[in-house]
Amino acid sequence: MSSEKVTVVEKIMDANDQVALTNRRILDQAGVFSLNIMASPGAGKTSVILQTIKALAPEIRIGVIEGDTAPVTIDADKVIAAGMPALQINTAGSCHLDAVMLSRGLESFPLSDIDLLIVENVGNLICPASFKLGTHANVVIASIPEGDDKPYKYPTIYRGLDVLIMNKIDLLPYIRFNKEYFLKGIEMLNPGLTTFQVSCETGEGIAEWAEWLRARVKEQKAK
Amino acid sequence: MSSEKVTVVEKIMDANDQVALTNRRILDQAGVFSLNIMASPGAGKTSVILQTIKALAPEIRIGVIEGDTAPVTIDADKVIAAGMPALQINTAGSCHLDAVMLSRGLESFPLSDIDLLIVENVGNLICPASFKLGTHANVVIASIPEGDDKPYKYPTIYRGLDVLIMNKIDLLPYIRFNKEYFLKGIEMLNPGLTTFQVSCETGEGIAEWAEWLRARVKEQKAK
Repeated sequence: MSSEKVTVVEKIMDANDQVALTNRRILDQAGVFSLNIMASPGAGKTSVILQTIKALAPEIRIGVIEGDTAPVTIDADKVIAAGMPALQINTAGSCHLDAVMLSRGLESFPLSDIDLLIVENVGNLICPASFKLGTHANVVIASIPEGDDKPYKYPTIYRGLDVLIMNKIDLLPYIRFNKEYFLKGIEMLNPGLTTFQVSCETGEGIAEWAEWLRARVKEQKAK
Repeated sequence: MSSEKVTVVEKIMDANDQVALTNRRILDQAGVFSLNIMASPGAGKTSVILQTIKALAPEIRIGVIEGDTAPVTIDADKVIAAGMPALQINTAGSCHLDAVMLSRGLESFPLSDIDLLIVENVGNLICPASFKLGTHANVVIASIPEGDDKPYKYPTIYRGLDVLIMNKIDLLPYIRFNKEYFLKGIEMLNPGLTTFQVSCETGEGIAEWAEWLRARVKEQKAK
């Protein structure tokens, strides 16, 4: 790769990071704590969001921004049905959200009416890792049926995250999944990472995750 | 988007498609039938490949090219352990294979020793759809635990495929999955699509898939 090409790439990343900083400032000024939830398609991002709403609302007022590669509003509709404000960002085929897309979403979002903003990124275990959004915490949801080797095969997204949620643990009896091997891969990339093991079907583990999130929202309010 | 930008994108796609045509010619000259297998991370691409080897080898000689976003050779090692030639293309963080990457792989691959080449694309339900490789058939593996709404949410990859494999059907009793709704989405995008329902754990459905593949390999040899 020529040095010219490298410079261009660096400039694109700089521009994204600048907008991410502005997004963070807007969220901080509104006193809103925010998450960027990333995962493969079907890992349970929307299900975790719906369970989080069930556990924390109305005590904590939650808003959701949905990143989708197609214009269907299946996920946003579910959040609205749960009584929360939701907005869809249709990436028109693009494989990730970036800070500019989020900044446009924030412009029209009723931030003064919420305490917690959850951004659901596009279902993809590769590209979203490369674009900061300006949110306060990166959350990856690992789905048990995806297998225990994912941290080894997709290290970029599993590195530098703030919270890991292992979802669909109700399926553990029916699947060959070596939890020790999986967690060893996670620990290698993120020593001491905050990890929750949950099932959105049975509700197991959701209370612990909600407790962690409640504390972050309170900290943000106290700032 | 300015018309200048559109032109540049079109030229990149043209270049990829040109190399894809060359790849197809090389495969045809070698009498090798080839698949491009695409799916989310953990949908069972490597498991389907290993089951296919078990069902068809040594009658049909199979080679595998593994696309991985990280340099770990977990999947290629499994294929080699099954006694087949395998080569890994490390995309160095990139989210898909393209025709140029495959053409480099083909240069060093022992095509005269095989009848069937299986290319396992990077685990991603978005980006691989945009890059033709030059292979004869596009196969998407849908994993039951990913949920029944995926054709609606990721229409680009579910459109224009040649075969759909529904994997992990052994988990159907434990998961809410509306097969009718899923297949309606598939039918909308690909009327009359060839579809196999399989389990790599129990072996169910593998024989039917292997039969379809055996016929394609024979047709290619007869050309």
